[in-house]
Amino acid sequence: MRIALAQINCTVGDIAGNCRKIVDYIGRAKAQGAEVVVFPELAIIGYPPKDLLLKPQFIDDNLRALKLISSRVSGIDAIVGYAERNADPVGRPLHNAVALLRDGQIFSRHFKTLLPTYDVFDESRYFEPGPDNKTSNLIQIGGTLAGVSICEDLWNDERLIDRRLYHENPLANLSSRGSQILINSSASPFVVDKHKFRIELFSSQVKQFKQPLVYVNQVGGNDELVFDGNSIAFDAGGNVIAQAKEFEEDLLIVDVPATTGTPTGNRIEKHTGGVASIYKALVLGLRDYVTKCGFKSVVLGLSGGIDSALTAAIAVDALGKDKVVGIGMPSRYSSDHSVDDARELAKQLGIQFHIVPIKQVHDAYESTLGEVFKGTEAGLAEENLQARARGAILMAFSNKFGNLLLTTGNKSEIAVGYCTLYGDMCGGLAVISDVPKTTVYEICEWLNATRGREIIPRNTIIKAPSAELRPNQTDQDSLPPYPLLDAILYRYVELEESAPQIISQGFDPETVVRIIKLIDRSEYKRRQAAPGLKVTSRAFGFGRRMPIAQNYQQPIPKLRDPDVAMEEGTEIGWGYEPTMD
Amino acid sequence: MRIALAQINCTVGDIAGNCRKIVDYIGRAKAQGAEVVVFPELAIIGYPPKDLLLKPQFIDDNLRALKLISSRVSGIDAIVGYAERNADPVGRPLHNAVALLRDGQIFSRHFKTLLPTYDVFDESRYFEPGPDNKTSNLIQIGGTLAGVSICEDLWNDERLIDRRLYHENPLANLSSRGSQILINSSASPFVVDKHKFRIELFSSQVKQFKQPLVYVNQVGGNDELVFDGNSIAFDAGGNVIAQAKEFEEDLLIVDVPATTGTPTGNRIEKHTGGVASIYKALVLGLRDYVTKCGFKSVVLGLSGGIDSALTAAIAVDALGKDKVVGIGMPSRYSSDHSVDDARELAKQLGIQFHIVPIKQVHDAYESTLGEVFKGTEAGLAEENLQARARGAILMAFSNKFGNLLLTTGNKSEIAVGYCTLYGDMCGGLAVISDVPKTTVYEICEWLNATRGREIIPRNTIIKAPSAELRPNQTDQDSLPPYPLLDAILYRYVELEESAPQIISQGFDPETVVRIIKLIDRSEYKRRQAAPGLKVTSRAFGFGRRMPIAQNYQQPIPKLRDPDVAMEEGTEIGWGYEPTMD
Repeated sequence: MRIALAQINCTVGDIAGNCRKIVDYIGRAKAQGAEVVVFPELAIIGYPPKDLLLKPQFIDDNLRALKLISSRVSGIDAIVGYAERNADPVGRPLHNAVALLRDGQIFSRHFKTLLPTYDVFDESRYFEPGPDNKTSNLIQIGGTLAGVSICEDLWNDERLIDRRLYHENPLANLSSRGSQILINSSASPFVVDKHKFRIELFSSQVKQFKQPLVYVNQVGGNDELVFDGNSIAFDAGGNVIAQAKEFEEDLLIVDVPATTGTPTGNRIEKHTGGVASIYKALVLGLRDYVTKCGFKSVVLGLSGGIDSALTAAIAVDALGKDKVVGIGMPSRYSSDHSVDDARELAKQLGIQFHIVPIKQVHDAYESTLGEVFKGTEAGLAEENLQARARGAILMAFSNKFGNLLLTTGNKSEIAVGYCTLYGDMCGGLAVISDVPKTTVYEICEWLNATRGREIIPRNTIIKAPSAELRPNQTDQDSLPPYPLLDAILYRYVELEESAPQIISQGFDPETVVRIIKLIDRSEYKRRQAAPGLKVTSRAFGFGRRMPIAQNYQQPIPKLRDPDVAMEEGTEIGWGYEPTMD
Repeated sequence: MRIALAQINCTVGDIAGNCRKIVDYIGRAKAQGAEVVVFPELAIIGYPPKDLLLKPQFIDDNLRALKLISSRVSGIDAIVGYAERNADPVGRPLHNAVALLRDGQIFSRHFKTLLPTYDVFDESRYFEPGPDNKTSNLIQIGGTLAGVSICEDLWNDERLIDRRLYHENPLANLSSRGSQILINSSASPFVVDKHKFRIELFSSQVKQFKQPLVYVNQVGGNDELVFDGNSIAFDAGGNVIAQAKEFEEDLLIVDVPATTGTPTGNRIEKHTGGVASIYKALVLGLRDYVTKCGFKSVVLGLSGGIDSALTAAIAVDALGKDKVVGIGMPSRYSSDHSVDDARELAKQLGIQFHIVPIKQVHDAYESTLGEVFKGTEAGLAEENLQARARGAILMAFSNKFGNLLLTTGNKSEIAVGYCTLYGDMCGGLAVISDVPKTTVYEICEWLNATRGREIIPRNTIIKAPSAELRPNQTDQDSLPPYPLLDAILYRYVELEESAPQIISQGFDPETVVRIIKLIDRSEYKRRQAAPGLKVTSRAFGFGRRMPIAQNYQQPIPKLRDPDVAMEEGTEIGWGYEPTMD
């Protein structure tokens, strides 16, 4: 059986554009003799469509598009993702669906059973699960009975989040009803090393149900999410027999054997892991965010530091060196080497570079505020003014020349709030906001090694990180060393471990409590942060929804003693020093 | 039967504080002879706890708190909301629960059946529905069999969103099993005139099941949501027999008659609707956000316009005039009357007022950018610099003196993006961001009439709204009149109507398409907006989750013609002019 895996880059909401692309791929698959071509989940509307799904007109338009596409289908079957209305007057209004298009008609409709509602996924907000997955998701293609499922239907596994979320396993239902091959239409976003886990998980499912599996993933960036492609096919023995490109559109033609073994015609692309895959994901995510928003070029501040250097390198790989503008904005506290390092980076990358000193604006702020600040000591307020002057200058560039401003903060500093709201946090996209500082270093080393030259200047890598908002400042004046910070961050944010749990692993209690406190009280900053590209299992932003005006304190020592807890009014936990910076 | 409705103001995450409050109210209810005291939904942890629920330690702490509270219960029953672990190893890890506390023990546990997952609600993200509501939610209190339910369990009604979302009606189950009274523990956030609908809905449920109903709501602000209290009791005939205060904590003692009629001891507080209730909700929401974040005072820019005037008035009512600082920041384009109107407002409110002209900073920006902007025409970039200078000055105040910055944009301007990111959008709380401009006027007129004097200066109300970023600018240079804008906004955002639907109601097609386009393309600004207090059925922010890099266009004319849609590449819909401002 010859199946085409149409790994396309869908733009959310762009029904007309996605529609044209689907018709194009159907034609190409037919030309290559495929019996059936499979598209990603919700391909007509792009994943994730979010609250566009609440617009009745949007659903109408997507249904009309499905009909249009079906009218172009002949001599091949197509399985196309779309949003279907729930025929039952009770329940969520929609189904997450695929249609089988055949002979110019919508031949049959099939609904998703398991609806992910965790992390970045909100599917219970919109969809009703398929009413009877047991019978309705089997389709006859030529002589083969195929079992159709959609994304999460493949993922009912306790390894994912230490727990099985669903009582049902749609694959077991399909298999028990006689399916001979499993076809899955997906939109599975990138997380570092997730593809390795996918292969392991899918392979174990295949071995359990003893039939081939074809998995078609979306590719491309949609806001925070980057879909890595990596569509894949297994034979009935759980062996990989074909794999599509990573981070690129691809039409993968797969000859699925009746038993096991790889037919010689199949293509198996390599996939990367680790920092290399993070870099590729960020390049794709940046490119798609910029172009899908309708921009052609980007601007960013180059401080001479490693975060802006990496962001600039990613932008150049995503858009080309002519589409990236760097601005150096030295202050009275900037070291000479900062501007030199920034200039050297711009030279290495071949991008435009302007220098716009902030001294004059900084002086004007100080003089303007002199009266009302009289008698106070210079501190945070004055430091932040410099970052905000830079933010305003960059936004003026963006407004004037129409290039999207990139913000360059990494996950470690955004976690602890070591960044200035409306200052260095200004920008339309936070390119590396889900990359911990230690990983930023690793990526830069990898990049230089891979390219065989110092794209990221050596001095930028070896010097002590500094915000340069006061004389001789370094990050480590305020923060523990990044390897320590990142280790605590990982446990607290990605693993949801508590202070006592982290401390029990040998970390200094005071440091742990301090870091957790900083993370918790920086929530208000992150609420106003630019969307950031997700690469870890738990990114700040849409997939981590924390209250701001809250007072949960770890540990709660007084609660352990009922009599004290009830009588004492104010001494619970640590004090809270509010700032807004 | 005497029931106490403990309408308390819970702080999210503040387990120790909520715990103390619950114990205090149990004591007071007992002192007044109540047989049972009922607390709001998730009272121990506050509603909505969001992703705090994903922290295992947080769940442990809340369970420990429940046990502590139970140890203090004697001579009265208490029904207390908390998060319970799901005993089934498969499914979501938690239940949204109440416990019946009796004689120093946790006597029984009861789980929510209907889990709202729409608008601002995300309960399917965390909770598994109660496994068998039919039997397990009945409790014996004295001689009465009471049916317990939690919030949404009362709301399975198609009037809410034009559709029944759930197949089950927990009240019908309770009633068919013999319940004699219905007790509901809730956290139901304020939306203008929602309480009128609650009374109608609850009363119709009561009439259907022919038994009294007691509904206990949370009160107070938690981030975007304001809980209005308004706890209420009905006799078996569907008549209101008691009602708690609105927007205040209250312990309401209700004698529930065996049949119908209001026992003389019951208290029925009045509730307000319309603009008066919006004003009260904003006062409470502001006060709680500021104090629960640990701040004592606020600062805001006073432009002489109506939005900042209303915001200042709300802040004074919330915190007292000594806790509010106003800053006037005239520019070279500010009219004389702007500063006069701002000063007059400050005088009327009795608040501190400083004048910090932005001329010097504005000049410094222009001079700094002169070189790189040479040969370009002044426009948006230059206008925004003024707004950003103001934002930075206000943030410097906030950083220096520790007062929370309030941002003052209304819903109409945030909808169409008539505001400057990192400029007038700076701030920790957007007080009136869910209030359309026409409603801002109504509230101000109501406020002046109610107070019997011109709190909001007459000139501020009658002059044409202006951003004053260029000479003689008014809002209506760029926007249609606000009554028209607000009418389209309401249909597009609150009702989810499409362009063709709105146009079919007699609105000018060009204006409709233009407004919708402005709303859609301002999504990236709103993503970085401060949290705003929700007062309408659909607020921007957490309850409206839109993609940014999307390309849905209404209408999609070319899609109506299949042959054209497929062949033409670029002429679909309107063009998109990206800006980042």
